[in-house]
Amino acid sequence: MPGNTFGHTFRVTTAGESHGPGNIVIVDGVPPGLELSVDDLRSDLERRRPGQSKIVTQRKEPDEPEILAGVFDGRTTGTSIAILIRNTDQRSRDYTDIQDKYRPGHADFTFDAKYGFRDYRGGGRSSARETAARVAAGAIAKKLLRERCDIEILGYVKQVGDIVASIEQPEAVTLEQIEATPVRCPDPRAAESMIALIEKVRGEQDSIGGVSELVATNVPAGWGEPVFDKLKADLGKAMFSLPAVLGVEYGAGFEVARMRGTENNDRFAPDEQGSITTTTNRHGGMLGGISSGLPIILRCAIKPTSSLSQEQQTVTRSGEPTTIATKGRHDPCLLPRFAPMGEAMMALVLADHMLRQAAIR
Amino acid sequence: MPGNTFGHTFRVTTAGESHGPGNIVIVDGVPPGLELSVDDLRSDLERRRPGQSKIVTQRKEPDEPEILAGVFDGRTTGTSIAILIRNTDQRSRDYTDIQDKYRPGHADFTFDAKYGFRDYRGGGRSSARETAARVAAGAIAKKLLRERCDIEILGYVKQVGDIVASIEQPEAVTLEQIEATPVRCPDPRAAESMIALIEKVRGEQDSIGGVSELVATNVPAGWGEPVFDKLKADLGKAMFSLPAVLGVEYGAGFEVARMRGTENNDRFAPDEQGSITTTTNRHGGMLGGISSGLPIILRCAIKPTSSLSQEQQTVTRSGEPTTIATKGRHDPCLLPRFAPMGEAMMALVLADHMLRQAAIR
Amino acid sequence: MPGNTFGHTFRVTTAGESHGPGNIVIVDGVPPGLELSVDDLRSDLERRRPGQSKIVTQRKEPDEPEILAGVFDGRTTGTSIAILIRNTDQRSRDYTDIQDKYRPGHADFTFDAKYGFRDYRGGGRSSARETAARVAAGAIAKKLLRERCDIEILGYVKQVGDIVASIEQPEAVTLEQIEATPVRCPDPRAAESMIALIEKVRGEQDSIGGVSELVATNVPAGWGEPVFDKLKADLGKAMFSLPAVLGVEYGAGFEVARMRGTENNDRFAPDEQGSITTTTNRHGGMLGGISSGLPIILRCAIKPTSSLSQEQQTVTRSGEPTTIATKGRHDPCLLPRFAPMGEAMMALVLADHMLRQAAIR
Amino acid sequence: MPGNTFGHTFRVTTAGESHGPGNIVIVDGVPPGLELSVDDLRSDLERRRPGQSKIVTQRKEPDEPEILAGVFDGRTTGTSIAILIRNTDQRSRDYTDIQDKYRPGHADFTFDAKYGFRDYRGGGRSSARETAARVAAGAIAKKLLRERCDIEILGYVKQVGDIVASIEQPEAVTLEQIEATPVRCPDPRAAESMIALIEKVRGEQDSIGGVSELVATNVPAGWGEPVFDKLKADLGKAMFSLPAVLGVEYGAGFEVARMRGTENNDRFAPDEQGSITTTTNRHGGMLGGISSGLPIILRCAIKPTSSLSQEQQTVTRSGEPTTIATKGRHDPCLLPRFAPMGEAMMALVLADHMLRQAAIR
Repeated sequence: MPGNTFGHTFRVTTAGESHGPGNIVIVDGVPPGLELSVDDLRSDLERRRPGQSKIVTQRKEPDEPEILAGVFDGRTTGTSIAILIRNTDQRSRDYTDIQDKYRPGHADFTFDAKYGFRDYRGGGRSSARETAARVAAGAIAKKLLRERCDIEILGYVKQVGDIVASIEQPEAVTLEQIEATPVRCPDPRAAESMIALIEKVRGEQDSIGGVSELVATNVPAGWGEPVFDKLKADLGKAMFSLPAVLGVEYGAGFEVARMRGTENNDRFAPDEQGSITTTTNRHGGMLGGISSGLPIILRCAIKPTSSLSQEQQTVTRSGEPTTIATKGRHDPCLLPRFAPMGEAMMALVLADHMLRQAAIR
Repeated sequence: MPGNTFGHTFRVTTAGESHGPGNIVIVDGVPPGLELSVDDLRSDLERRRPGQSKIVTQRKEPDEPEILAGVFDGRTTGTSIAILIRNTDQRSRDYTDIQDKYRPGHADFTFDAKYGFRDYRGGGRSSARETAARVAAGAIAKKLLRERCDIEILGYVKQVGDIVASIEQPEAVTLEQIEATPVRCPDPRAAESMIALIEKVRGEQDSIGGVSELVATNVPAGWGEPVFDKLKADLGKAMFSLPAVLGVEYGAGFEVARMRGTENNDRFAPDEQGSITTTTNRHGGMLGGISSGLPIILRCAIKPTSSLSQEQQTVTRSGEPTTIATKGRHDPCLLPRFAPMGEAMMALVLADHMLRQAAIR
Repeated sequence: MPGNTFGHTFRVTTAGESHGPGNIVIVDGVPPGLELSVDDLRSDLERRRPGQSKIVTQRKEPDEPEILAGVFDGRTTGTSIAILIRNTDQRSRDYTDIQDKYRPGHADFTFDAKYGFRDYRGGGRSSARETAARVAAGAIAKKLLRERCDIEILGYVKQVGDIVASIEQPEAVTLEQIEATPVRCPDPRAAESMIALIEKVRGEQDSIGGVSELVATNVPAGWGEPVFDKLKADLGKAMFSLPAVLGVEYGAGFEVARMRGTENNDRFAPDEQGSITTTTNRHGGMLGGISSGLPIILRCAIKPTSSLSQEQQTVTRSGEPTTIATKGRHDPCLLPRFAPMGEAMMALVLADHMLRQAAIR
Repeated sequence: MPGNTFGHTFRVTTAGESHGPGNIVIVDGVPPGLELSVDDLRSDLERRRPGQSKIVTQRKEPDEPEILAGVFDGRTTGTSIAILIRNTDQRSRDYTDIQDKYRPGHADFTFDAKYGFRDYRGGGRSSARETAARVAAGAIAKKLLRERCDIEILGYVKQVGDIVASIEQPEAVTLEQIEATPVRCPDPRAAESMIALIEKVRGEQDSIGGVSELVATNVPAGWGEPVFDKLKADLGKAMFSLPAVLGVEYGAGFEVARMRGTENNDRFAPDEQGSITTTTNRHGGMLGGISSGLPIILRCAIKPTSSLSQEQQTVTRSGEPTTIATKGRHDPCLLPRFAPMGEAMMALVLADHMLRQAAIR
């Protein structure tokens, strides 16, 4: 049943497995005339790719995109754009273990329950490899949002294990600050501790979870639909569609559970230009699910990598108890590489709602 | 731009404002032959309606549903079902304040930014009144899930302010335990404290937030789609589409940020019947976004009611500073009435994925 | 499975049976600020309703619409609009025949094959009664198209039996010419013959088919999408979704089968204002499925009414040969009442593509 | 605005231009376990491709498909399938004429009106080249329909110019009869005349139109949805989404305009096995838009090829009168190559409704 399409007016459809020929995305709804080349796609693909630093997986995936359709003379034509990213690291391996045993925390068992069989090589369609296609599409959305509305979308690591970054103004964080360290945490002191922690857990053949924070600035007030397609609903779906995300919160998030209305309500006031704004942003940039003009701020809880090189207890496909140690090279912590994926999904949602709003006003 | 439809194969479309003639839902995709009458809709509407207890708003909305189409001889026909719930408490009131001033925490400002004007009476389309239509549709989904798969969906209050209920086995909670107190918390001791706290904040013309927990039992393994339409993604969208929800988490939720892979991974093992299960459920009933057969467990962070009867600072439509005290009768805490709304949305998602899975196997 | 929603950006969802409480439509995607009242809906509903003249069915259905949502202070709010048209002619009747026997040409048999049972009263959901909801929604689309682009959409009877109207300039036909006779044929001489023929077949307890022609003027060049959502594809679906339509053609239509390219190609040339147009319109106003700026012209072949008051041979639900004479009052010819239905569907498609185009330019 | 996706439950999304790198289709919703390889795709691609016989265009497009995703160990996995067909005949040419002048009958002008500019090489996205992707996807749908329901779908040439084939039993026509001549008309005598006529018009630097007939046998009763997604509506959209189709009709088609109800109604009767059928099939296999179990029969009117090698009058992009003779190799008649395109679209619709029906019963 179709579940590989996302978005209403800016719409992406993907296909691809981790060890098949490649990953493909068709982006439908991009307005004509946007300058676009593979160079626009490379930067975020590079931030997403394995092997980029010592604290991520050392797999080598060059992730070279090819634009197959929808661009002519360096500009989008308005018709559907197709991008192919071939898989290159398809080394012949022994998949017996992963074929017959269910890796804890992975989708092996649920895929079998759903389909009756599965492409077991490296997780197949359930591998995070498919996010390469999303990141390529997201790069187009980002460029469109930037050119039309000056919108910037940035993601960074807010927390790894017990180490929480101190970030006073999420909307003031820059890409340079984020990219200053391989862990992508703009608080340099926390970043140092996070890197040490990640190296420690890797040494212990273990993994560690964390929290990613994402910020979109310059989103005009008025985007999002009142009921089901609230901006927070579409962003929530976008984030939860990414692997390993177990929680999403906006603005004050779960802290609102402890708050009084008098504490939590953001007060409307005129800004310096006389426009209406709120003096605080506990609401996370959306009221009634519609953007308020304040920065959109969300956080995702990311679980520790399920793949561990140490032995874990599990069962075979027929239910016999056994153990499995996942061979191969895994991220000891998913957080550093999550930023470009989260940014891409945020961009897809915002580009969709930008065009949806354009249709009615 | 259309945003009032939800679901792919079991699909609802709604319309209605808080002070217009009524709220309407069309439910498309209900299989033929399901016994259905207004009695099936009344129970959850009653749990949702204002005025049901002393700790919720005292507005009177009898919420009497009328089935306008799709049912014949007491059974669904397979064609679209329409349900109308007329608004009855449409007393002539003075809306001058709400017309000209932006209520903090509400969607008044963002609706104006989006549409240029708005139905200001009681929030119009942004009012939680529209959830009556969802609850009616959800009752159909619940019945279908129960009859086909013996699935039960229950929501209850997990936290109000600092008071956290102690619930060892979410999947063992019963409707009777939930409905035993007006706060809908199945931990009797916590319930008592929560009620006292809610009465206290009401006395102080204030409001309080909380956390709602929702559990679906007997969901078979294999529901949900691999990439964008993960079950956790569709449930996340469903929950965030409800008013006042600022956070959603599954299973271990935000706690995974602090965990190691060795701590967090649930271990596969045969159950007593020899089927494959996991010995713990930190994953919340979904792996790779597909149901695992374990109970699906999620929590929503609900902000304190934005409407306060005490004066709050704000601005007029033209940006002039002013104050507003929201007249009328409001819930001092949204949690008690949230359970049926959350259950309804969870049921809509599960019914959709039940039918989606039926199409392929 | 959902099949009661139509359109992408201007989207309608309907429910209702011929002898249930009423017919309902939710219109999602109407931009805010359009002046709208029930008066805007009445005119086309009146043209569609039974009993309006002596050559149509004499059933009485006042078709009074009620706007339940989406309009405030006389203007659309931008949120979903709901319209209810209650059924009033629900006289208690003997439905034994129609319950147990399959009416030739009707959907009784196919509904049973699909759903296992059906609402047999007057055809239930398969009755043309459901088009009342479409006509109400179409009236909104028409108004929007007129106000934004000065587009007019008119349908009329081109042929009944062997009588073919002579209409030299379809784009010059006026509503007054169409409404001048109850048969809705703007060629007065042909209209007279058609009326006589319809009365003759009615006297013979028979029915007669025909062709309806529909014209949309002032549609700007550039609407429609290149591949699947070609304007001719969406219009084709719209027309074939109406009961009794067995053929649809544009411009030269089936005549192109006999033509050479040199005969059929319309020549581009500058018009009097220097804009680009074609000197002829055999292409029917669309090239590559995208509007060319020329009038959009299509024709629908409508079969003779299946219900006949004379005995017809058929079978019972269990397959036993029997006969049936459909009691009740039927149109001897569906053509006169088809015009408003066809116009409504054409308007829904054009309004959808108007908004779709607005999103990208 | 997205218009490159087709279908609800069996869904295809395409991208690609005639002279870009290639054409791509993502097929979403194919159930798991269907045996599939590129060999399954080749047969229909071969029937569609240029250069296959002397009466079609002599362009060389080998149309070699590559399956990029969704197939593992020779079977579909249930996740999205991607197919790429690279363009190989991308010879460097002089496109000055087509860049600056509007070819009569083509979409050059309407694309410019829509997007402001266009990929002018060979028609870009408006070229029939994009149907290669549809034919590849249709081959999957055909195989699924055959394996699950023994459904066969065949298209053939019914008419070219004034030459009409005599085909008494459309449902008895075989692929062998169709493929016996390069014109794909199963009436050998008519085929001979058609070939002669096509060669004649080619010799005259002209082109000729025709009618294609398509037949689906063994479709069970009960497929299709009652209102908007009638089977005839979805098939109608499918056919009109193909280039050059100006008319579609089912069963008796436009002939119903001249018929009486007593003549046109098909009589229900038990068949030899006691099942319910109709003794004639003027209804074309659908009643109320739902399949009746009789063969589905439709016809498409195809216009003569617009590209002519003789000079035609037209205008430049700036509106100046000029002439154009379309260089390159064109089909003098589109009919022979239409069959596989029409079959593919019919298969996509039927596969979609097969799965949609599976979800509810």
